[in-house]
Amino acid sequence: MKPSLSRLRDALKNVAVPKRRRDRTFKDFGSNPDTTRIVIAEAISSRGGEVAARNRAAVVAANYLMLEQEGQHRFFTILAEDFGVDRPTVDSLIKELRDSEDRGAVERKLRTALEAERELLFRRFLSVESGLAFVVGLRADLLAFNDPALADLDDELRRLLDRWFDAGLLTLSQINWDSPASLLEKLVEYEAVHAVTSWGDLKNRLRSDRRLFAFQHPGLPNDLLIFVEVALVSGLANSVDDLLNTSAPIIDSDQTDTAIFYSISNCQDGLAGVRLGDFLIKKVVTELSREQPSLKTFATLSPIPGFRRWLEEKLEQPNFFDLEEETKSALHTALKNPKWGAETQVVSQLREALPKLGAHYLLLAKRGSRASDPVANFHLSNGARIERIVFGANQQDVAQDRALGMMVNYRYEISKIEDRHDAYVHDGIIDAHNDILALLPQSSEART
Amino acid sequence: MKPSLSRLRDALKNVAVPKRRRDRTFKDFGSNPDTTRIVIAEAISSRGGEVAARNRAAVVAANYLMLEQEGQHRFFTILAEDFGVDRPTVDSLIKELRDSEDRGAVERKLRTALEAERELLFRRFLSVESGLAFVVGLRADLLAFNDPALADLDDELRRLLDRWFDAGLLTLSQINWDSPASLLEKLVEYEAVHAVTSWGDLKNRLRSDRRLFAFQHPGLPNDLLIFVEVALVSGLANSVDDLLNTSAPIIDSDQTDTAIFYSISNCQDGLAGVRLGDFLIKKVVTELSREQPSLKTFATLSPIPGFRRWLEEKLEQPNFFDLEEETKSALHTALKNPKWGAETQVVSQLREALPKLGAHYLLLAKRGSRASDPVANFHLSNGARIERIVFGANQQDVAQDRALGMMVNYRYEISKIEDRHDAYVHDGIIDAHNDILALLPQSSEART
Amino acid sequence: MKPSLSRLRDALKNVAVPKRRRDRTFKDFGSNPDTTRIVIAEAISSRGGEVAARNRAAVVAANYLMLEQEGQHRFFTILAEDFGVDRPTVDSLIKELRDSEDRGAVERKLRTALEAERELLFRRFLSVESGLAFVVGLRADLLAFNDPALADLDDELRRLLDRWFDAGLLTLSQINWDSPASLLEKLVEYEAVHAVTSWGDLKNRLRSDRRLFAFQHPGLPNDLLIFVEVALVSGLANSVDDLLNTSAPIIDSDQTDTAIFYSISNCQDGLAGVRLGDFLIKKVVTELSREQPSLKTFATLSPIPGFRRWLEEKLEQPNFFDLEEETKSALHTALKNPKWGAETQVVSQLREALPKLGAHYLLLAKRGSRASDPVANFHLSNGARIERIVFGANQQDVAQDRALGMMVNYRYEISKIEDRHDAYVHDGIIDAHNDILALLPQSSEART
Amino acid sequence: MKPSLSRLRDALKNVAVPKRRRDRTFKDFGSNPDTTRIVIAEAISSRGGEVAARNRAAVVAANYLMLEQEGQHRFFTILAEDFGVDRPTVDSLIKELRDSEDRGAVERKLRTALEAERELLFRRFLSVESGLAFVVGLRADLLAFNDPALADLDDELRRLLDRWFDAGLLTLSQINWDSPASLLEKLVEYEAVHAVTSWGDLKNRLRSDRRLFAFQHPGLPNDLLIFVEVALVSGLANSVDDLLNTSAPIIDSDQTDTAIFYSISNCQDGLAGVRLGDFLIKKVVTELSREQPSLKTFATLSPIPGFRRWLEEKLEQPNFFDLEEETKSALHTALKNPKWGAETQVVSQLREALPKLGAHYLLLAKRGSRASDPVANFHLSNGARIERIVFGANQQDVAQDRALGMMVNYRYEISKIEDRHDAYVHDGIIDAHNDILALLPQSSEART
Repeated sequence: MKPSLSRLRDALKNVAVPKRRRDRTFKDFGSNPDTTRIVIAEAISSRGGEVAARNRAAVVAANYLMLEQEGQHRFFTILAEDFGVDRPTVDSLIKELRDSEDRGAVERKLRTALEAERELLFRRFLSVESGLAFVVGLRADLLAFNDPALADLDDELRRLLDRWFDAGLLTLSQINWDSPASLLEKLVEYEAVHAVTSWGDLKNRLRSDRRLFAFQHPGLPNDLLIFVEVALVSGLANSVDDLLNTSAPIIDSDQTDTAIFYSISNCQDGLAGVRLGDFLIKKVVTELSREQPSLKTFATLSPIPGFRRWLEEKLEQPNFFDLEEETKSALHTALKNPKWGAETQVVSQLREALPKLGAHYLLLAKRGSRASDPVANFHLSNGARIERIVFGANQQDVAQDRALGMMVNYRYEISKIEDRHDAYVHDGIIDAHNDILALLPQSSEART
Repeated sequence: MKPSLSRLRDALKNVAVPKRRRDRTFKDFGSNPDTTRIVIAEAISSRGGEVAARNRAAVVAANYLMLEQEGQHRFFTILAEDFGVDRPTVDSLIKELRDSEDRGAVERKLRTALEAERELLFRRFLSVESGLAFVVGLRADLLAFNDPALADLDDELRRLLDRWFDAGLLTLSQINWDSPASLLEKLVEYEAVHAVTSWGDLKNRLRSDRRLFAFQHPGLPNDLLIFVEVALVSGLANSVDDLLNTSAPIIDSDQTDTAIFYSISNCQDGLAGVRLGDFLIKKVVTELSREQPSLKTFATLSPIPGFRRWLEEKLEQPNFFDLEEETKSALHTALKNPKWGAETQVVSQLREALPKLGAHYLLLAKRGSRASDPVANFHLSNGARIERIVFGANQQDVAQDRALGMMVNYRYEISKIEDRHDAYVHDGIIDAHNDILALLPQSSEART
Repeated sequence: MKPSLSRLRDALKNVAVPKRRRDRTFKDFGSNPDTTRIVIAEAISSRGGEVAARNRAAVVAANYLMLEQEGQHRFFTILAEDFGVDRPTVDSLIKELRDSEDRGAVERKLRTALEAERELLFRRFLSVESGLAFVVGLRADLLAFNDPALADLDDELRRLLDRWFDAGLLTLSQINWDSPASLLEKLVEYEAVHAVTSWGDLKNRLRSDRRLFAFQHPGLPNDLLIFVEVALVSGLANSVDDLLNTSAPIIDSDQTDTAIFYSISNCQDGLAGVRLGDFLIKKVVTELSREQPSLKTFATLSPIPGFRRWLEEKLEQPNFFDLEEETKSALHTALKNPKWGAETQVVSQLREALPKLGAHYLLLAKRGSRASDPVANFHLSNGARIERIVFGANQQDVAQDRALGMMVNYRYEISKIEDRHDAYVHDGIIDAHNDILALLPQSSEART
Repeated sequence: MKPSLSRLRDALKNVAVPKRRRDRTFKDFGSNPDTTRIVIAEAISSRGGEVAARNRAAVVAANYLMLEQEGQHRFFTILAEDFGVDRPTVDSLIKELRDSEDRGAVERKLRTALEAERELLFRRFLSVESGLAFVVGLRADLLAFNDPALADLDDELRRLLDRWFDAGLLTLSQINWDSPASLLEKLVEYEAVHAVTSWGDLKNRLRSDRRLFAFQHPGLPNDLLIFVEVALVSGLANSVDDLLNTSAPIIDSDQTDTAIFYSISNCQDGLAGVRLGDFLIKKVVTELSREQPSLKTFATLSPIPGFRRWLEEKLEQPNFFDLEEETKSALHTALKNPKWGAETQVVSQLREALPKLGAHYLLLAKRGSRASDPVANFHLSNGARIERIVFGANQQDVAQDRALGMMVNYRYEISKIEDRHDAYVHDGIIDAHNDILALLPQSSEART
């Protein structure tokens, strides 16, 4: 993903702190633990009433935004160590629970007591200007440390963000060429699958047979949470290069029958773990069905990010797949030489071999009962099925590509989503087109 | 307040349930406990994925909206009895807590276990169309039963609404005569202090020397949460009748020095207990100071809702205040005869006596360490002080008035709000103008 | 129509003149002809450039707005007498025209020379704040004098307004209950056919089976030019009272087949003679056909404003229509007694007689080749036909009604509008339903 | 300027003609004079009423949009020859004028008779979708032919556009980075002075110490008419390169005292001759003064487009300016070699000589009583004065530059604009800073 951390800091430095409060910065905040602790404690105290307390939380925010990484880590550590759960109260309530006549009331108290003191601070940050963006940025900072000692804090922030960014509170926006340039600029920055190479490229993705839908939060009107790029085409698309080709002819919408979701990007590191993607895809399917009734098929054209690593490991094993030497050699060439596409013999070898290997990887390589590939796991969890494996779908950055140019269509069929979700999530059953099952070795029983 | 319950139901009946789902109603939902329990359980289960679960929650919502009061009560009772906290898990986690090496992790689990199952349903209701309004309406329904057996449910709903309606997520809107008629119509309905008698009356409250500010939630764009009506005047206003007089001359804003907050109304029964009022007043003070720098004084003109009842009780006590017989008789007259304003002798007796009694009531009648009068307690908690007691401020509905026409100015001074808040909340100290203190019996020491 | 004159003045007094220019008012402007002439001449001169000249025009506007009727009349008279066409130049160009080799060039010069000097002032008024409203108000003032000596001025203003308010520059707006209260208030004021009696009445006219469309000009965003009120019903409506009845049940739009245009009101006196009505009706027919395909019939329910006067005249003639004495007597009663609806005998007499008389009036009473009734002439010119005459369609204000409660449905059929327009406008042929033709005396040949 | 002609055609092909009317195209329209004449005549006739006539005008528009240049020219020629002024009527009215008692009435008729028939068609084009854009595009097409035989048509179109685009009907918009990308894209296309090289360059021109104001017409909401780019700086800017430098530090607005108008671009060829520029500059001066009171100086940084040609002519004359041979040689070098900036001797010669020559050109080279340079004439007509001549202000495209890198500051002082306008326009007096007058030869009397 993208460095939302520094970006958000830049943005917030300008907006978050009202000018008159700029002088209430503490030079040794973040470096001197005592100062840091006192300033935080002030913002958590209820002295002067809630409005006053929120003003003090704004002072904490302003000081936080001046910190470099080291200071941030100290800030988080102090929060983690000194402003946690009030354990004596928890213990005494647990005792009370045993003998209580109104157990519900004590449970409620216990639940409140299990909220760390610092959560009050996080909630008060909402009243900072752009407060919601500040808290999202704060969690992005926290996650960047990847520090197990901060796991409690992360859980608390995720819990709050989960409430504030509930899918029911978000709005589905359609982005087009009349959208503000500042928003489109963010979109370019956030695009994580197929990088936008120019404003011409971007404009092409917003033309009349393309759609771009995003989730936005009304409290962050000038930002995006997650977006999906869709091409309306006739028949399943063979290649993402075709989709991104700026000179491809525009298709009259009424003649399209298939919507290809060719790029899905999360925009906010700070919202990791907050569910957005499955809601977005299903809302867009509904919206497109309504807008363009000629559309019958909804499918992605997705990367297989884990394939190369899996293949490299497997190739070191003896007797891997009983591959012929010629094929093995072609695979080694392709893995080493990004320009293997020019070698016709290699290409002809791989055209047959790669889809089989891909099918094996997607259906049989598991982590527990789930598909090992993260993109596969995401779409299968959402109730999609594996519809097609496309050799050479991504020629452009084939070298860097983690699947030697191969991509997958995952298909969403509204009426079957629930059953497929359940079969996959509860029983690890992966649904796939017969053509793909046919690629698997006879012995395997992928579907059971 | 107002019957938001039935109003919301009317509104939601039209919007909440997509047409195609109207047939998924269960005739005995609400009357047959088994049906009710099964339909709820379905919506709480995660079968088919989160999006599918939320569709089932929409079915619950649609069925709920068909219920009469009795059915609603049964629905709530089933939720309360059958979808609560998973106590065996709670108990086992409590055991685990004792010996745990990573107590934080167990505490997090315990906290999650203390969430009732039904909370998942409440959160899923957000994805219903107008979902936020539905949940607010649901809590309004719940509160209307005033049933102690539903206290847990109420606590859970309030907790969720408290997060979703955090003051930091609300927008301050200025309502004026260019606002949508549909919004103004709601305002008329919600006005709880001085009823709007006509569209002319309303227009007068929106003229150039009046202001009307409201908190709105971006998820409820066509509704109001709380609003305050302000008059910009020169000097403290003497009478609310003058403020509402449609033929009063309009004052050039630059010549005003005082903002009188003459009406504050909460709009949503379902948000009882969610703090909005203190945030609104202070935001409006800030906003008005910025917009109109000539304003120096910010004060309310407020009712004294508890005065009449207190006075009636006191009058039955012997030797009450050492009042002279003439005064007592005048008080009895006034309490009985709504038209006492026409009897000059009574008026002249009360003009002297009422402010003294009012001062006594406001400053010395306590509930614990707090002022007994609820409006006084609200403003004093917010850090205001008692600035003036105005005899005859409300002539119009003097009969119904619970303070024999007397009203109070509570004054907000930004620089003193925090200290006054603390003094009142922690030590029960009420700040008041010297003129008011002078009205108290010599012996009393109101301020200590 | 309505007193847009004084209303616009009130509005413009507040907005038109920037504060800093308020002191540039001339006390004897309007009363002293010399001052008036000089101030106008300044604004017409090009001294200092066009921007400077427009600032001086704003001074004229500011001074004009202070004038009472007498001063206004003097202002217009001075404009008419002293700032007209430059006749010597016209005469010399006419001479030049005869011998010119490039006649086109001289014609262009002549055309410019035929523009009165004062037109420059009218155009410069556009740069006043709310300039377009000012010019419309100015013409309304002018028309109010009904002074033949001002006919040239009126022609010039109408010509300019005709360009600025070309139907192609207007926007069709749908007004509903979410529209600004200030706009709805204007609508109430402008309604010229069926007065709005309350905000409840208004809300009823905006309910889901009603439509209200207006033409607006982007330069006058908070005002209306003309509007039409439409009821979606099943079958032709029998009575305007039914349409305005607030307790009438709401019809599901999909079950409606007929759109009744029951009220059309021009809003701006100053736009008299600028064509708006025919464009509005046809745009609304197109818009409604698109929005609600179940609609098959588009018709008005219109008053017959000239009927009573015609009837009264005719009744004084001997042997009028060979009416029986009983009928004549009933007619006299009805004309005298507004409550004739209570007299069953009168009603039964008129139920038969009135439609016949109405048909006679509408089809045979002519002014030149046109229908004498102005509303009939308007709709027939637009290509409508007379579909039905409805006895007792307007019970409510039957007394004041100029057609003894009778109303007419004019029907608009898109495919026949052009032919009907031509037949009526060029040959005076009125198209009507056979049922109506059957009401005419045998000898008459209405359609030839 | 830019090829708005073809651009508008492209845009209009998509929008102007409703689909259902696409089949009403005539294959030989534009090529067959008879067809062309008949289709036009139909649209000018009033058959079927005004709405019907406008529908036929839409057919003409649709057919016109299919034409190539040759067909367009034939279309215009037919309009010019066959749909002009009704001369017999004009002649008979001229006769009538002599003996008329009500000369005003006849003048009005004559004026109407002098309107060519085709004007009705132009006005009816307004009702085409995007009608205003269509007419502007039509005139752009017409002007491109530069055909004297079409002068009457051009005059009529300009006259109409002058009314519809009166400065009082336009809105001043501030364009920024939150504006729609589609609008910014147009801006890039229209920029005629300093070409926008990238979206980064564009974003830099919209940063916090830059302003971009445009005139828009409410009937063309997604297009621009004219815009000006402004830099807020401290002191007069020395170089346009500095202003466009994307790495130049941003200045806090409160520390700026000077607004430099460094680029003004007309956007619509079809509006040639319609005054927009002077209104824009003065509105922007007013707007900026209000927004940023620290601004004291308003000046342009303008090119001198006619300088090179003038210099080249002069250099061929003997004894030109008594220039020393060294200087002459340096000038010849600079005119030939775009990279003369690298030759220090040439630079040092020209640093002294060029400003003198520039002053001479600007103040003494006249066309009649006006400055010969068109940009100088524009700003001097607007009431600006020549404040400074800046050597080397435009290094970047010094080769192409028509003034050897030299630019001029024209200064706008509100209080002196009117007098300077009058002195220049009526008496040919050019106001300039004393430093510039000092550059002139002693004998010249520039200011008289």
